[in-house]
Amino acid sequence: MKKLIGIGTGPGPGELLTLGALRAIENCHHLFVPRNGKKTMALDTVLEVFNREELEEKIVYLDFPMGASNEQTYELARNTISDTLKDQEVGVFITIGDGSIYSTLLNMLGKMEGDLTVEMIPGIPSFVAAANAARWDLVRKDEEFTLMDGLEPERALTADSLAILKTKNPEDILDRLEAEGYDYVYLERVGHPSEFISKNRDEIVARKSYMSLILARKKEQ
Amino acid sequence: MKKLIGIGTGPGPGELLTLGALRAIENCHHLFVPRNGKKTMALDTVLEVFNREELEEKIVYLDFPMGASNEQTYELARNTISDTLKDQEVGVFITIGDGSIYSTLLNMLGKMEGDLTVEMIPGIPSFVAAANAARWDLVRKDEEFTLMDGLEPERALTADSLAILKTKNPEDILDRLEAEGYDYVYLERVGHPSEFISKNRDEIVARKSYMSLILARKKEQ
Repeated sequence: MKKLIGIGTGPGPGELLTLGALRAIENCHHLFVPRNGKKTMALDTVLEVFNREELEEKIVYLDFPMGASNEQTYELARNTISDTLKDQEVGVFITIGDGSIYSTLLNMLGKMEGDLTVEMIPGIPSFVAAANAARWDLVRKDEEFTLMDGLEPERALTADSLAILKTKNPEDILDRLEAEGYDYVYLERVGHPSEFISKNRDEIVARKSYMSLILARKKEQ
Repeated sequence: MKKLIGIGTGPGPGELLTLGALRAIENCHHLFVPRNGKKTMALDTVLEVFNREELEEKIVYLDFPMGASNEQTYELARNTISDTLKDQEVGVFITIGDGSIYSTLLNMLGKMEGDLTVEMIPGIPSFVAAANAARWDLVRKDEEFTLMDGLEPERALTADSLAILKTKNPEDILDRLEAEGYDYVYLERVGHPSEFISKNRDEIVARKSYMSLILARKKEQ
């Protein structure tokens, strides 16, 4: 039987890789690396800990062009994985963040079960790293926390605490959070040297970054 | 200045400690270990990776009796931390899961800022480890995910995907999830040798474990 281990590499810093991830990458036969154009964010994290030379021979790139990923892209990736992994071999597929959170990993691999054994090693999600960086309670006893990848106007905000990913239009988001009585903190590139954290509305609306998120918490009555 | 690093040790297995957590524990002057009676769950995780002898001299226990933890307990803990840490020293405080998620760590330490610098290293939350163990998509593109530490009858279930922690009465929870059109999976002791995962109602309602959680996902229409 072939085995594929899906690994979440966390939000960016190599320091946030788990010991299990490290060990699996060290011991695998093939390392499947998703690539978007020339960007290989999950590999960048791994290369903070490993030398490129150590891994070079294991690396197999899988192309997932941003915006153009679809069933055909996944099919190609599945075929490459299938052709590369020989019986009794172990492959590792790395993905940023965690493989169960806004990831296509499980969806992509689902159709391969039977052909191979799938295991998963969790990674630190970006919003968890963000809460720690901002020393922000993500959720307290008896509270609810909701995670979303955008703020839909038609969805009611009911949770005590929120994480909103991909905040491309922070101004609209802040308007709504203020109207509904939430405090907030905005974070970009958590754990990177260029990390940016702010609770100041004017500072936040001036930013436009894909790698950003907002944490919000209902003001106490 | 004194420094205290709060570290989430994840859901149990030493394998899920991060490299940053490892390094901080190695290099600290004092290791503050929360203890509930004789239970020291965060330390148990750390001792899967370190020898007790390596750490013994650094360990300072802080008692947080379950159910009896209150402002007085925290005050005692703060005093112990303050008295133990000398100027220029670094202490580490370990806590299960992640320090921003259903944790009193930030609340407890908040009052110490100014007296010392607080840093946080995130840990793998239990519900993230659970989703990976069950190969369960916690949240997909354009979806919302809600985390709660119990299912309150008066709270509406609106999210596409849920994690419900501390499922002491699984039967009531399953009744409601079924009535509201959610699929579910129940998990106990994720990553332990005694890990238990089931989607079978009869199996689930027979269990009564504190270390359990339920993941649920709205059925597709």
